[in-house]
Amino acid sequence: MLPPALVPTAFDAGSVWLVGAGPGDPGLLTLHALHALQQAEIILHDALVPEEILSLAARSRLEAVGKRAGGTRTAQLRINQRLIALARQGLRVVRLKGGDPLIFGRGGEEALALAAAGIPFRIVPGISAGVGGTAAAGIPLTHRGLTRNVAFATGHEAGANLDRVALTDVLVLYMAAHQLAVIAARLIAAGRDSADAVALIQDATRPEQTVQITTLGEAVDQPAAVAPTLIVIGPVVTVRERLVAWQQTAPMTVVNEPQQARIAG
Amino acid sequence: MLPPALVPTAFDAGSVWLVGAGPGDPGLLTLHALHALQQAEIILHDALVPEEILSLAARSRLEAVGKRAGGTRTAQLRINQRLIALARQGLRVVRLKGGDPLIFGRGGEEALALAAAGIPFRIVPGISAGVGGTAAAGIPLTHRGLTRNVAFATGHEAGANLDRVALTDVLVLYMAAHQLAVIAARLIAAGRDSADAVALIQDATRPEQTVQITTLGEAVDQPAAVAPTLIVIGPVVTVRERLVAWQQTAPMTVVNEPQQARIAG
Repeated sequence: MLPPALVPTAFDAGSVWLVGAGPGDPGLLTLHALHALQQAEIILHDALVPEEILSLAARSRLEAVGKRAGGTRTAQLRINQRLIALARQGLRVVRLKGGDPLIFGRGGEEALALAAAGIPFRIVPGISAGVGGTAAAGIPLTHRGLTRNVAFATGHEAGANLDRVALTDVLVLYMAAHQLAVIAARLIAAGRDSADAVALIQDATRPEQTVQITTLGEAVDQPAAVAPTLIVIGPVVTVRERLVAWQQTAPMTVVNEPQQARIAG
Repeated sequence: MLPPALVPTAFDAGSVWLVGAGPGDPGLLTLHALHALQQAEIILHDALVPEEILSLAARSRLEAVGKRAGGTRTAQLRINQRLIALARQGLRVVRLKGGDPLIFGRGGEEALALAAAGIPFRIVPGISAGVGGTAAAGIPLTHRGLTRNVAFATGHEAGANLDRVALTDVLVLYMAAHQLAVIAARLIAAGRDSADAVALIQDATRPEQTVQITTLGEAVDQPAAVAPTLIVIGPVVTVRERLVAWQQTAPMTVVNEPQQARIAG
């Protein structure tokens, strides 16, 4: 279903593709990812991958294994073992993750488990939320005169780990909104300017995307967000206000969602 | 030419799309990028975008504006003005860049120029070489127990700027190979372990990709590379040796390249 001039890479029976689904907009799927969705016989997917993207997997079984499936986190070890078992049945297996499989996606652990078991695998990079979400918000990660480097980190540990990236020109934090105030205080203590602009991006690249702008100093007193939120810190956040009136961000849409056979995760 | 279930976002006449072409493998184009290539009436592209990807632009004029076009760098100001002039002619204009438009791609400057001129634009993120090239080399940018943050920087300034990212868990340097030795010495002086593994990746995600492994200490005495090279520094580089035997990396290919009308840059 790709243009006839494109020859997709063979997806061998008995192999696993670790695929990034991008931040949400189906138009940010890569051609490899679309091919994988269309060729897979079974897809183990995170709960954060939108229904719209899953509906492109016309002929495969879908199995939810993400954090939210069943209310508890399916252990990573169990996912690894399931991937290996399915590949050994001779199936074409896709492990589908939001964003990129290797940027806070634990794809490296799955790849190591597959390699140790002698299962051929492919890593299909995806647009990470930190890249796609900032672009959709009108925030250039690098910008002449304002940023010459950018760091990605998680908010899981807001301790000494954060100090190593505290002074990068732009700092992008994943899964950090629940402790925004702690993080802001720590960054200011590490020498970051409290006047630095901060963007809080929710539902990045989706029609319901929201962007809230504040400063590091104000964030110290801000209540924690509960929904998955991307935090962007740095003077370059202010570029947004000059772009947003002329920027188009409508996502690609999917129609006629086919019926899917589903298995509980 | 996309699957019938996908409804592409409208590409309006008189607008400009700033599009990331990814690191080289045509399979790493996004669906938005493919749609843009197929809808554009004119494409201003960097010299680093492979011929194969350009050949997907079946019906548009191609204009090379990158660093290598004509031996000198086309001034950024001239590119901005050209984008504005073409959009004012009512054309669908694509500005196609290797990697991602906002990660060392100067897309922010072009977006600002377009917004200031009142031209509607869209930013289509791409897989940056630092993401796609490291994945193809079997190096996870984040990995439990080894890396919890990652920084991207350029090697253009190997001075004080580099100190701000010197101690991140993984450091990915773009366009830095010409001063690898200077960079390695600076990072060691800033406190980075000289035993840290270093990967030098050329032609990332292309069939001719090469990966050379060294250490930071050895890199101090290493001759500079001349070709565009991605440098990855951190213990996580060593994960590669356990993955590479089972990892598949063949790119998507393009056949039947259509004839193109070309304009000198």
